[in-house]
Amino acid sequence: MTGASDSGSPVEGPVLIIGCGLIGTSLALALSEQGVVVHLADAVAAHVELASSRGAGSSDPVDDPALVVVAVPPSVAAPVVAQALADHQNAVVTDVGSVKAHLLAALAGTPGAARFVGGHPMAGKERSGPMAATPRLFEGRPWAVVPSADTSSHAVDTLTQMASAIGAVPRTMDATTHDSSVALVSHVPHLASVLVAGLLNDAPSGALELAGPGLRDVTRIAGSVTGMWLDIFHGNAAEVSRLLTALRGSIDEALTALDTDPNDLGALLDAGRAGTRLIPGRHGGASEKLATVYVSVTDQPGELSQLMGDAGQSGVNIEDIRIDHELGRLVGQVEIAVDDSKADTLVTALDARGWAAHR
Amino acid sequence: MTGASDSGSPVEGPVLIIGCGLIGTSLALALSEQGVVVHLADAVAAHVELASSRGAGSSDPVDDPALVVVAVPPSVAAPVVAQALADHQNAVVTDVGSVKAHLLAALAGTPGAARFVGGHPMAGKERSGPMAATPRLFEGRPWAVVPSADTSSHAVDTLTQMASAIGAVPRTMDATTHDSSVALVSHVPHLASVLVAGLLNDAPSGALELAGPGLRDVTRIAGSVTGMWLDIFHGNAAEVSRLLTALRGSIDEALTALDTDPNDLGALLDAGRAGTRLIPGRHGGASEKLATVYVSVTDQPGELSQLMGDAGQSGVNIEDIRIDHELGRLVGQVEIAVDDSKADTLVTALDARGWAAHR
Repeated sequence: MTGASDSGSPVEGPVLIIGCGLIGTSLALALSEQGVVVHLADAVAAHVELASSRGAGSSDPVDDPALVVVAVPPSVAAPVVAQALADHQNAVVTDVGSVKAHLLAALAGTPGAARFVGGHPMAGKERSGPMAATPRLFEGRPWAVVPSADTSSHAVDTLTQMASAIGAVPRTMDATTHDSSVALVSHVPHLASVLVAGLLNDAPSGALELAGPGLRDVTRIAGSVTGMWLDIFHGNAAEVSRLLTALRGSIDEALTALDTDPNDLGALLDAGRAGTRLIPGRHGGASEKLATVYVSVTDQPGELSQLMGDAGQSGVNIEDIRIDHELGRLVGQVEIAVDDSKADTLVTALDARGWAAHR
Repeated sequence: MTGASDSGSPVEGPVLIIGCGLIGTSLALALSEQGVVVHLADAVAAHVELASSRGAGSSDPVDDPALVVVAVPPSVAAPVVAQALADHQNAVVTDVGSVKAHLLAALAGTPGAARFVGGHPMAGKERSGPMAATPRLFEGRPWAVVPSADTSSHAVDTLTQMASAIGAVPRTMDATTHDSSVALVSHVPHLASVLVAGLLNDAPSGALELAGPGLRDVTRIAGSVTGMWLDIFHGNAAEVSRLLTALRGSIDEALTALDTDPNDLGALLDAGRAGTRLIPGRHGGASEKLATVYVSVTDQPGELSQLMGDAGQSGVNIEDIRIDHELGRLVGQVEIAVDDSKADTLVTALDARGWAAHR
């Protein structure tokens, strides 16, 4: 029903992608879909064959690529980028790592540094490897474009065009801003989620049976695999420490308030609420006009599809859906977010079809 | 499509519900649906009239109720419960507050204390008041049943039967266990979410444009209204402090690791992951066998309903749905969770109908 977004400028090929994991193979698939000539390389030959067999690109060597994307683990990115700059004297070279300042510092003064620009697609999924790859991985997602002091405007333009061509949203910023930004929006929230989830290991018997959707939301990302996160915390230790120290400071404020006058927590609660409203997307702007319609379901086969079909018949556009499975009993409420002015229409339509719906 | 669960024993009436807010009115609607005679009271007469007009029960006084449910704000619950015990000498009396130990302590030695049992339905929604009420509010949700040392077994049985009759899942526990449990699964995760969200107020320009679904999950509950939470933190300050201090301790561990060897974070990451697996429902048991199918959407009117309809035609039961709206652009991926053995069937079926679907 949808393809990658149209790009203003085509991507000049050939593109060499070094590293056929989830990110590299997904990028290769997306670029190939756009008609770009893609060549693949990986330290593990089987990964190249696998990615190539999925239509991601050619496993043949390439003579003179216009762009080289280094999609290898961050701990080995610097030497691979330096080698790519040496091997391909006409190519722009970029990477896909989650942390940027230490990589740019490692590459400062490298021959060809003007042709290197850092990159970081804000995309991923719980599975890794070339078989998990998809050309849609980057659609609608930010792609940070991070030049060093040496980087040419041609290199910046090349990466920006590539990101746009595959439906990502390029955002140019310097390495310091990037690393402090991802510490704030990703690395520290991840650690906070992990540490709250860690408390659950000391839960009194039966306590977790009282858990609701709030706890599941807060701890969801703590359930992801840990390997990549150690690399990230290595690379961004200073920024993560700075923000984690700030978080500890507000915990101390909360502890003081609890000890003296819990009403003093009001300012922290208000600040938190204000913070959520700064996040683009669900919390901001348009979401203010959304209303939630609740519908009871029992998780019969096909029930959810029936519900969505019935909701569609109402002519009301569904903005979001949320389902809770409580206590292992597959029964609960589906929350359907729609424009506030349409919620009553949807409730009436669903009630008429036998659903127990309410705002 | 679904009603409240069947109960083994009917609820003996009449039931008097004092307080016609979201919880009181929802309970009144649910009991009335079960054929129980319900009477309503509220300090604000208009609330009674509103709830009564929705079919929640009678606004007439009641002579000799079998059960009185005090559903008033926690700060005034103790005197209202004591008055109810005095006014209705044959009634079991219960409340619905989020914190229990201080209420039970306040009521110790009150005449009729054997007829009082604490209660706490783990249910709510973002809107409050009688118009937001729904008889389905408690379906599948835990209802903590919290006796004091004085409470009779008749009182415990009465509340347990009532909770079951309206589809809730009664869980009997003492007040200390209750308060430490809700501090762990609700109050401290809420504060952590608030404090992480509070950091966003100091975000460098553009940083939040890099936000992904992880940040939104962690901070979602921080967006709720603050009033009730101050009452909760007042009532449960000691338990919240104890756990918040433990959280600060693990932040200190993380800071030490970041400062010395980030690999030491591995143990904290592993503990967090283990913690998420203790939560019943989505993280535990059955969810291990679920696979996620990703489908690209552009948020056209009716598109989601079309997608669900097409998914339904595949005969695959949908376990969960998740939608991201990225960067205010209404484009993104729908994640559909299905049994692992059915994921390929669903991908094939959706691809055949023109969707870009993949595992």
